[in-house]
Amino acid sequence: MLSHGEAAALSPARLRGEIAKENWQKPTAGLALGHVQANLAVLPSKQAFNFLLFCQRNPKPCPVLEVSDPGDPHVARVAAADLRSDLPRYRVYRKGKLIDEPTDIKQYWRDDLVAFLLGCSFTFEEALLSAGVPLRHLETGRALPVYKTDVQCQPAGPFEGVMAVSMRPVPGSLVSRMVQITSRYPLAHGTPVHVGDPSTIGIEDLGAVYYGDPPVMEPGDVPVFNACGVTPQLIAARAAPELMITHLPEHMLVCDVTGEQLSGM
Amino acid sequence: MLSHGEAAALSPARLRGEIAKENWQKPTAGLALGHVQANLAVLPSKQAFNFLLFCQRNPKPCPVLEVSDPGDPHVARVAAADLRSDLPRYRVYRKGKLIDEPTDIKQYWRDDLVAFLLGCSFTFEEALLSAGVPLRHLETGRALPVYKTDVQCQPAGPFEGVMAVSMRPVPGSLVSRMVQITSRYPLAHGTPVHVGDPSTIGIEDLGAVYYGDPPVMEPGDVPVFNACGVTPQLIAARAAPELMITHLPEHMLVCDVTGEQLSGM
Repeated sequence: MLSHGEAAALSPARLRGEIAKENWQKPTAGLALGHVQANLAVLPSKQAFNFLLFCQRNPKPCPVLEVSDPGDPHVARVAAADLRSDLPRYRVYRKGKLIDEPTDIKQYWRDDLVAFLLGCSFTFEEALLSAGVPLRHLETGRALPVYKTDVQCQPAGPFEGVMAVSMRPVPGSLVSRMVQITSRYPLAHGTPVHVGDPSTIGIEDLGAVYYGDPPVMEPGDVPVFNACGVTPQLIAARAAPELMITHLPEHMLVCDVTGEQLSGM
Repeated sequence: MLSHGEAAALSPARLRGEIAKENWQKPTAGLALGHVQANLAVLPSKQAFNFLLFCQRNPKPCPVLEVSDPGDPHVARVAAADLRSDLPRYRVYRKGKLIDEPTDIKQYWRDDLVAFLLGCSFTFEEALLSAGVPLRHLETGRALPVYKTDVQCQPAGPFEGVMAVSMRPVPGSLVSRMVQITSRYPLAHGTPVHVGDPSTIGIEDLGAVYYGDPPVMEPGDVPVFNACGVTPQLIAARAAPELMITHLPEHMLVCDVTGEQLSGM
């Protein structure tokens, strides 16, 4: 097993190679810095059109980085990867019920599976820091807070439900800067979906997170909400397809492309 | 039949109503100014996943504005429209062969058809003019020149082939401005795919257009190429699906959303 320091020194390709050899089975945060990390969702091809349509109709929570050809576990655009083994850990659901958290999915792969790689807002955090926008969750060593809203997504076939959002407290004078920067990253959830009063989007208590840690806000901070990659997992779990495979949260696909490259794709 | 002046005075919704009553069967250029006009492609649901995947993999030539639910000819996001009758004229292809150019497609509509509305670069022309970027084709009363390139699109299932581009001559000092403005319109083909020497992308002679009129260039103009909505028609025709319906070129769907609204979608 690699140490965090050893893993953090590797290129994305080398790191995926070590992950495939089961030499890294932990979260990918802090690894291959500057490179995009992607959410994974795998579904039978029978559901693939409706899921892709759902993503097309809801591009803020579901920015599609790449879709595999049906039956082919390989991708090549954002990462030259074998999606059966190149993530540290997976979750396997049958009819919406979690049945396994394996370190590879070779035994589950089938000729009719389609893999979707979706963007993640971690991608623009480096650009925010470079521009002087503080990130309170990093300053305090906490996980980004995630909430369910009452904002309905546009449905597609069996896929429907509410949008999840992440929240970053931002000093009022830097909200414009945050919007400018995130607007360059539509494939990483892009610009905020809401700024200010959480109750407007159905969040009664910022302390009651759905995922992550409760936020720490400084005087003068405004809550800024971005659509979150937890949304497609909520939506897909609710639709309860016969088989669905995702990454284990925080155990993502480390991609070859950088955030800067993604901003031009 | 309405006069052009009468048609140009109507809101998008009223205009679509007149088109559905067959009171307007001509090109939609110059109508409902400021509002988005969309390309139409209708395919059987059997091909829908691969076509949507093709669009996802090639967002510059194929920006997806909206996709109908299978069997439902109505859309609601960019226009509250019945796609069977709200365009002035259509083209119907069987196995890639043109068989009809009707003014409505009610007799061809089926329960398994899916309609795709794709963006068009006319959407950002108003913003270019406002910013002082001259549009030579409008100055000289010509149609925008369109070319086939040797740039291969990313294939998806049976859909594959080269990208088509439109070309606008732009003064060298205004190329940056054009990139800045078009970057706000990813759903209208977005930023140029190439600036300068046409031979780099397989165009040997700017006078030999595939569609439209040969360009007129002023001294100091640079050729600027944008991915073009002719691409998906070329690709789909080559795949020769059992049935395919498109708009007749220049006879587009007039949408309710404005270009400015689209730039935020």
